[in-house]
Amino acid sequence: MSGLEGYLEANRGRRLADYCEFLRFPSVGGMPAHDADTRACAEWLAGRLRAIGLDGVELSETGGHPIVYAEWLRAPGAPTVLVYGHYDVQPVDPLEQWVKPPFDPRIEGGRIYARGAADDKGQVHLHLSALEALLAVRGRLPLNVKVVFEGEEEGASEHLDAWLEANRERLAADLAVISDSGFFEGNRPAITVGLRGVVTAEIHVYGPRLDLHSGSFGGTVENPLNALCAIVAALKGPDGRVLVPGFYDDVLPPTEGDRAALAALPFDEEAYRASTGVPALAGEAGWTVLERRGARPTLDLNGIRGGFQGDGAKTIIPADAHAKISCRLVPRQEPARVFELLRDRILALAPPGVRVEVDRYQGGRPSLTPIDRPATRAAAAALRESFGVEPLYHREGGSIPVCASFESILGLPVVLLGFTPPDDQAHAPNESMDLDNYERGIRTVIRYWELLAAGAEK
Amino acid sequence: MSGLEGYLEANRGRRLADYCEFLRFPSVGGMPAHDADTRACAEWLAGRLRAIGLDGVELSETGGHPIVYAEWLRAPGAPTVLVYGHYDVQPVDPLEQWVKPPFDPRIEGGRIYARGAADDKGQVHLHLSALEALLAVRGRLPLNVKVVFEGEEEGASEHLDAWLEANRERLAADLAVISDSGFFEGNRPAITVGLRGVVTAEIHVYGPRLDLHSGSFGGTVENPLNALCAIVAALKGPDGRVLVPGFYDDVLPPTEGDRAALAALPFDEEAYRASTGVPALAGEAGWTVLERRGARPTLDLNGIRGGFQGDGAKTIIPADAHAKISCRLVPRQEPARVFELLRDRILALAPPGVRVEVDRYQGGRPSLTPIDRPATRAAAAALRESFGVEPLYHREGGSIPVCASFESILGLPVVLLGFTPPDDQAHAPNESMDLDNYERGIRTVIRYWELLAAGAEK
Repeated sequence: MSGLEGYLEANRGRRLADYCEFLRFPSVGGMPAHDADTRACAEWLAGRLRAIGLDGVELSETGGHPIVYAEWLRAPGAPTVLVYGHYDVQPVDPLEQWVKPPFDPRIEGGRIYARGAADDKGQVHLHLSALEALLAVRGRLPLNVKVVFEGEEEGASEHLDAWLEANRERLAADLAVISDSGFFEGNRPAITVGLRGVVTAEIHVYGPRLDLHSGSFGGTVENPLNALCAIVAALKGPDGRVLVPGFYDDVLPPTEGDRAALAALPFDEEAYRASTGVPALAGEAGWTVLERRGARPTLDLNGIRGGFQGDGAKTIIPADAHAKISCRLVPRQEPARVFELLRDRILALAPPGVRVEVDRYQGGRPSLTPIDRPATRAAAAALRESFGVEPLYHREGGSIPVCASFESILGLPVVLLGFTPPDDQAHAPNESMDLDNYERGIRTVIRYWELLAAGAEK
Repeated sequence: MSGLEGYLEANRGRRLADYCEFLRFPSVGGMPAHDADTRACAEWLAGRLRAIGLDGVELSETGGHPIVYAEWLRAPGAPTVLVYGHYDVQPVDPLEQWVKPPFDPRIEGGRIYARGAADDKGQVHLHLSALEALLAVRGRLPLNVKVVFEGEEEGASEHLDAWLEANRERLAADLAVISDSGFFEGNRPAITVGLRGVVTAEIHVYGPRLDLHSGSFGGTVENPLNALCAIVAALKGPDGRVLVPGFYDDVLPPTEGDRAALAALPFDEEAYRASTGVPALAGEAGWTVLERRGARPTLDLNGIRGGFQGDGAKTIIPADAHAKISCRLVPRQEPARVFELLRDRILALAPPGVRVEVDRYQGGRPSLTPIDRPATRAAAAALRESFGVEPLYHREGGSIPVCASFESILGLPVVLLGFTPPDDQAHAPNESMDLDNYERGIRTVIRYWELLAAGAEK
């Protein structure tokens, strides 16, 4: 790899400039106002893949944002890996909490700050850079590669499953490598072996036709805000347990081995707490923090609104109230089934003085990937060589529904190889990526392709 | 009154145009952006009082919006009435629900539509018109009048008590007449003999320093929105009873006579429900609708916000959550005391994973005025003559804290003589006033001054 290393060293500045260029697109895929930006970002990405020397580069239409597809299949007899990442990013609000504009990347203290720096443009760009270095220095890759970069991941990959179905043949591979997950706390290299699923919903509570005077009507009509709070409060007990009948029915409990593995992780609970700023950690009684995050489902409000929002007081009974809600799911829980249970419970809790509706937005299945698969062990070896430490195996609390889709639709084993720890603030203001992780990540990917090509680790 | 009646008839068009001019000022006293509009409105009002022929007209500074004061004291030996109303109005949001702009009055179907048409500019203008007609036709009033038009009523009259204290001598009178209350449902002429008090507060719940990814942190930190809902839900039982320890301690229960009087009112519960659009009425178990409104305290949320407010889903655990809350109070409950009880309960309910603060905004005392006072009976007689029906005596659910202030600071008996039924939509979009009520209201006030001047009814 010495020729490669020389090339990577020599091109560091140009590479960073290119990474910044990628980050400048406000590709907030979930917001229609950014549709043009998101497409421009996809086009930029396709152009880069062409320039690097990949074949069959296209913006494949999905009905939503396009998938950027490319391939390099000139290594007959070698394995084929399908690489997945996404070029869309989360919204940026609250914008006022960003130290610098979120789409004007800045490098400071060995980190690069911008929306998407970690999730997931940084990881997409790290793959680009690995492919570019291999093709520039050697003119070839050690194995066959198919690249799938999506534009709707932050919106729960609405059109991906249908696209995978429709492209099943050309996506044939030996392995899917997903780089949209992360290191363990404390920037410890890690391979993710468990992901939670997710289902989101919105509750709408309708009361009077118009806002009412809280004096003339207070005490005689149900207040939609009070009703919404009562409904939401009844969905979870003070012990953190979700009080939706049937919610836990399909939960696959962690084995004693799983629990022991989580307990063995070098987890600094106080550092984790301090990183969030909360006065104390919380959660479901009877489980450790890592179990709560990796192996137990949740129910969280993501937003709530209703009534008077200005300064001071306006004494009304508002006409309506709304809450956005999400549940993280663990293996065996089905998003569609959990949504039904949740909706039924919410409707059953509605008092007679209001009308309640529940909309579903998104869902994604949880997944577990085996530790002892050869492709997982090769990824661990590549991480070990590049970062100089033994990687950990952990369960993430987040969701990458595409993981379950690659398994079920394409029948591919999946390896979750990502390079960003939780303190990179994905989804929050001032998201960033550690440039050392980014650089070592490039080496890890190159080494991983070499190890897979060596054959024992297909 | 025939000369007066001729004058009133002849000047109807000019009077309505003047009423509209008054309504065009967006005098939203509670919003700093409307400070200049509110002052301009006060100046316009002072100008009208001067033009009518009142003496000593001034904008009396209070530290907030000025009080428009005027007097006519040229009836030695006759009683002196202090007339109170307010020229500030409620905010207009939700603006999109107004059929026409709220400060562009329109007359349609015998009603005048605009913010403040009923509450309280319509009633202030009705007093202006009564004074104007008397002075124009007769050159004199039958009694002495002191006029106090406030600009901070919708903001709970923050500076009024201090101003009353400071002006106690010049406000000496025999009686205070407050026209900021209303008729009974179905536009039945009525005198208000009970008012609820009010106290408002805001709850702030702070969790993580920044919004967190609901996957990476869901299940391990307290969610401020869930915590806020749990706190609020715990403040009121499913039976509508407020669950704040001590909340009911000082409540003066209605007597059997009070309950019988409320039960005797011609109240159409179904019409009341239908007017609001709610599927069913609600409220505290064990009390009738009119008792819940007039004789029982409440706890209502007026606004709530936190987390993601856009379309679709954003799976975060938000950093903070906020709710505005108000309680209507009944006689013997003290706003300051109730706030303390409420705050203490909210803080006691706060889970350890969040930090909770409670701010107080406003408070006003409840009041009860005796039915059998001569001045009340004279008001009833004036109503009877002008509207041709026997007026009702009822308790309003709303609050006019100034009522308690006139009683306790100035030592004045108070008569609540107002002309707007609940369907005028005070505080809601498309507020309006029935022009027949407005016109008959002018006659009622004139007749009331005559009856008081006749002497028996001081």
